[in-house]
Amino acid sequence: MTYPDKLMAIRSQMKGEGVSAYIIPSADPHISEYLPDRYKCIEFASGFTGSAGTLVITEDFAGLWTDARYFVQAKEQLNDTGFELVPLQTQHAPEYISWLADRLPEGATVAFDAKLISVGLAQLLEAQLSPLGIQLRTDRDYLEPIWQNRPALPTAPAFLIGEELTGESLGSKLERLRAALKKQRADYHLISSLDDLAWLFNMRGADVKCNPVVLSFALITQETAMLFINTAKFSPEDQQKLLTAGVELETYDLVEKAIAALPDNTSIFIDPKRTCYALYKQLPKSVRVVQDTNPTTLFKAVKNEAEVANTRSTMIKDGVALTRFFKWLEDNIGKTKITELSVADKVRAFRAEQEDFVGESFDTIAGYKAHGALPHYRVTEESDAELQPDGLFLLDSGGQYHTGTTDITRVVSLGNLTEEESLDYTLVLKGMIDGATARFPKGTRGYQIDAITRKPLWDYARNYGHGTGHGVGFFLNVHEGPQVLNPSPMPVDIELGMITSVEPGIYRPGKHGIRIENLVLTVPAETNDFAEFYTFEHLTLALIDTAPVKKELLEAHQIKWLNAYNQQVVEKLGPHLNEEELAWLKEKAKAI
Amino acid sequence: MTYPDKLMAIRSQMKGEGVSAYIIPSADPHISEYLPDRYKCIEFASGFTGSAGTLVITEDFAGLWTDARYFVQAKEQLNDTGFELVPLQTQHAPEYISWLADRLPEGATVAFDAKLISVGLAQLLEAQLSPLGIQLRTDRDYLEPIWQNRPALPTAPAFLIGEELTGESLGSKLERLRAALKKQRADYHLISSLDDLAWLFNMRGADVKCNPVVLSFALITQETAMLFINTAKFSPEDQQKLLTAGVELETYDLVEKAIAALPDNTSIFIDPKRTCYALYKQLPKSVRVVQDTNPTTLFKAVKNEAEVANTRSTMIKDGVALTRFFKWLEDNIGKTKITELSVADKVRAFRAEQEDFVGESFDTIAGYKAHGALPHYRVTEESDAELQPDGLFLLDSGGQYHTGTTDITRVVSLGNLTEEESLDYTLVLKGMIDGATARFPKGTRGYQIDAITRKPLWDYARNYGHGTGHGVGFFLNVHEGPQVLNPSPMPVDIELGMITSVEPGIYRPGKHGIRIENLVLTVPAETNDFAEFYTFEHLTLALIDTAPVKKELLEAHQIKWLNAYNQQVVEKLGPHLNEEELAWLKEKAKAI
Repeated sequence: MTYPDKLMAIRSQMKGEGVSAYIIPSADPHISEYLPDRYKCIEFASGFTGSAGTLVITEDFAGLWTDARYFVQAKEQLNDTGFELVPLQTQHAPEYISWLADRLPEGATVAFDAKLISVGLAQLLEAQLSPLGIQLRTDRDYLEPIWQNRPALPTAPAFLIGEELTGESLGSKLERLRAALKKQRADYHLISSLDDLAWLFNMRGADVKCNPVVLSFALITQETAMLFINTAKFSPEDQQKLLTAGVELETYDLVEKAIAALPDNTSIFIDPKRTCYALYKQLPKSVRVVQDTNPTTLFKAVKNEAEVANTRSTMIKDGVALTRFFKWLEDNIGKTKITELSVADKVRAFRAEQEDFVGESFDTIAGYKAHGALPHYRVTEESDAELQPDGLFLLDSGGQYHTGTTDITRVVSLGNLTEEESLDYTLVLKGMIDGATARFPKGTRGYQIDAITRKPLWDYARNYGHGTGHGVGFFLNVHEGPQVLNPSPMPVDIELGMITSVEPGIYRPGKHGIRIENLVLTVPAETNDFAEFYTFEHLTLALIDTAPVKKELLEAHQIKWLNAYNQQVVEKLGPHLNEEELAWLKEKAKAI
Repeated sequence: MTYPDKLMAIRSQMKGEGVSAYIIPSADPHISEYLPDRYKCIEFASGFTGSAGTLVITEDFAGLWTDARYFVQAKEQLNDTGFELVPLQTQHAPEYISWLADRLPEGATVAFDAKLISVGLAQLLEAQLSPLGIQLRTDRDYLEPIWQNRPALPTAPAFLIGEELTGESLGSKLERLRAALKKQRADYHLISSLDDLAWLFNMRGADVKCNPVVLSFALITQETAMLFINTAKFSPEDQQKLLTAGVELETYDLVEKAIAALPDNTSIFIDPKRTCYALYKQLPKSVRVVQDTNPTTLFKAVKNEAEVANTRSTMIKDGVALTRFFKWLEDNIGKTKITELSVADKVRAFRAEQEDFVGESFDTIAGYKAHGALPHYRVTEESDAELQPDGLFLLDSGGQYHTGTTDITRVVSLGNLTEEESLDYTLVLKGMIDGATARFPKGTRGYQIDAITRKPLWDYARNYGHGTGHGVGFFLNVHEGPQVLNPSPMPVDIELGMITSVEPGIYRPGKHGIRIENLVLTVPAETNDFAEFYTFEHLTLALIDTAPVKKELLEAHQIKWLNAYNQQVVEKLGPHLNEEELAWLKEKAKAI
């Protein structure tokens, strides 16, 4: 079936049921960001492969609402599909709701599959559309009838990881969680978010590409912990370990029934952003619902000593792999044929040499020249470009290790930079340094660090359309909440022990793209009469190329930081490099 | 009656009615910040005179919840009253609600006077207390029976101001407002906020000290505009002008009846933050309520050309007055007896010499040495300190002119500064410069400018407990929304034409306080492929003392700005100063 055929088939079902608009979100029943193949509905319907977006289909319009990271990619992928790109003003905002409100008449019906819509989003749709007399039908899956050979749910093996990695037992985590539930006066707690479940049960798997999670749900009370999961994914030993720890194992599908069977007049705690509306609707009417961020989301974001120590050692492995890659690139550019695709393979190969490597933490973004201007560029056979000893090359990649998760972006000069390229590079570097060396009082939020990071770019009338940074998991998802560094007013404090990326950028479509990204750990700085001040420790260890830097634009403290950082990279990676590699790194790391 | 007597009398009424907690907010039926004497309930009950706070009284506790600006003042004023200070973590947050939630048992009753509680606050109380089984009684005024000679409502004259000042007629403003109501599908619009009413009807008065507003309400439809007001406040000519413009004049009290009489199944637009719950409760059940910020609040914040031009000329007058004052201070310090009180009188006298001066825009804050550490210090006969040729002196003052409103803070060295004083002064200046010279893309919010302003202080582990800035009216309230520069996640864009203060500070209790404040206008900077960039024009024109500056801590662009700013002050004020004054100013304004 072609995309226009699929669109026609969806519309004919809509017409048959009197539905005016159909919403296809990018989600699964766990409201995940990265999806099992079975739930790649947007890709199936429109061909768009980005990690964020929403399709909205009406009788005479079919649109993909997505953000600036994906504008160029979406325009290409949607070509001749019948879908048009609708650029989002604000990343992740459901701007199609007011679009629908402005266009649909009273009495119209909007449909979606409640399994793929969060409770919060459903409540928003209800609040904004119902007053206008627009109905919601929440149980429509118009893809199922037309999706030949729709992939089944994944069955990848799952495994438990030990306290030497996680630093905290399941029992201790459950205890903290139960204390939080008590405070919220909640009898039950449903967890749907896969990374929270992986963290809580100290389990990992491979149900979603790059994300070591396992499809599951959990229902927690003060006395019990039920895990709804395909039990066969675990070894008998791990099953036994879970049972011994007091976990009741139930099949994945049974969660719906368990929710529907909650006793009358009890209360349940759910995270409206991470629970699907379909489960919410199963709750008996008399059950009081407490809605807030999952306590596990907050717990998980604050890394303990073991997680931090493991991550620090992981950064050395990752830095060694990156160093070898960039040396290889410099040694071979102009001599061997190197393309974006071969670069991605090479980077993966260098990481794979490292102990504890599991896989990539996301699809490598290897963007040469103009391809670097697509912040989430994913190289394909068709787009694959050959690198030449000329211009800028952007590499954003990361690894999953049993000992932690990495995510790093570097841009290197392959030669002959323009004035504009050097200037843009220097401004991005200034932003990265200012954001990632900030001192700030306890209680500071991501939007404040975001503003500090952007200031050096704003001073020169430049900006970037994505967030400045995101939380990163411990051998878990590379995008992890609750903290986020972006301009939106999210009231989440940056707390001690959080690991966050800082990654400003400048993108010039058709020309070049620059992004420099380190992961940082929130650490104490100084406590005085004014406040308790925090700052960041740079966890990422990989040379920042000084060749493109316009030194005269850096402030003294920025030069000092850059030289010290590169020196630290030499010191920490040195013992793991051979003589030739170390000599190369030392040369590159020379103070400017 | 002593304060403990009043507290006892309130508690005895509470006991008689089975009320567990009584809330006394700082508000009037217009949810104003500055109050007519009749509504100074907190001052009557507890003696506290700050402009923000909430009293909560239970059987065994009586507390004032207020923010960092007032900690020292509150501790002094509450001494022996029976009330204790409860420091707010976040300015203006109703933190007493969770305090009540944690302490009151199921079945308890919380009482307040719905005239003094906004719709939004009442909804918050309801949402947080009802699930716990706590009842609300919304019609209790326990002060009325014990308030001997409670002041009547003010009867100050009111007057209309012309288009040469306002730049826009009532008719044009009504047209814009009605278009906004249409978009919100609202049949009626109730306006309660006094500054919005003053702006819309181009009227001014003197019902509230320092705020040239008139007690009134308005009910607007597509065809009609009813103004509920004590009509006798207007001259017959102004009454006629309003009638000619299609305004229906009704007595102030009738608004409640008008609201109660709205036709069934109509809709009304109200601002939940600026409408009292008592009026909201009068609405017939079938009336649909649209809740959002008043369109007039947004319109009013964006100054038109006439308002900007008038404000610019007002800044010259105000700057001349300030220059004369600071010269007088320098000439007389150590020779004449100068106290904080006499300073306040002197500043007022210099302003009063200026054309179009109406009065002060707020009570002058004149803080010598340690008194400067109280951000909202209000000098009294008891606290009045004598200035010596030693240490720092902080002056925060402003004027109401027919041609605009001013608000400026300067700190000057009277001699012998400590290293710490100079360092703190320099850091505050760095923050003010960085915030008020920022470039930023369209869509930037106050919390982002706030972070940029604080960064230079955070770098040295210093901070301040108040916001960075607030909107300022045009011959209207010195605190005006919707924009605000502070760390809270308020999704209000800083738009072209807005006038906002930028006023970072550093306060060391018992030692000194520093704050430097300019008013700035948002203006276009540059539009390119990245965004439409805005920046600020400094409206305030008064020398920034360079004597305390540690030049080595300023960055090159900060030095450049400081010298250019002081030079501009000389150029713009020069023509209005006599020879001696100008010579003095030129000397003080010399480039560093």
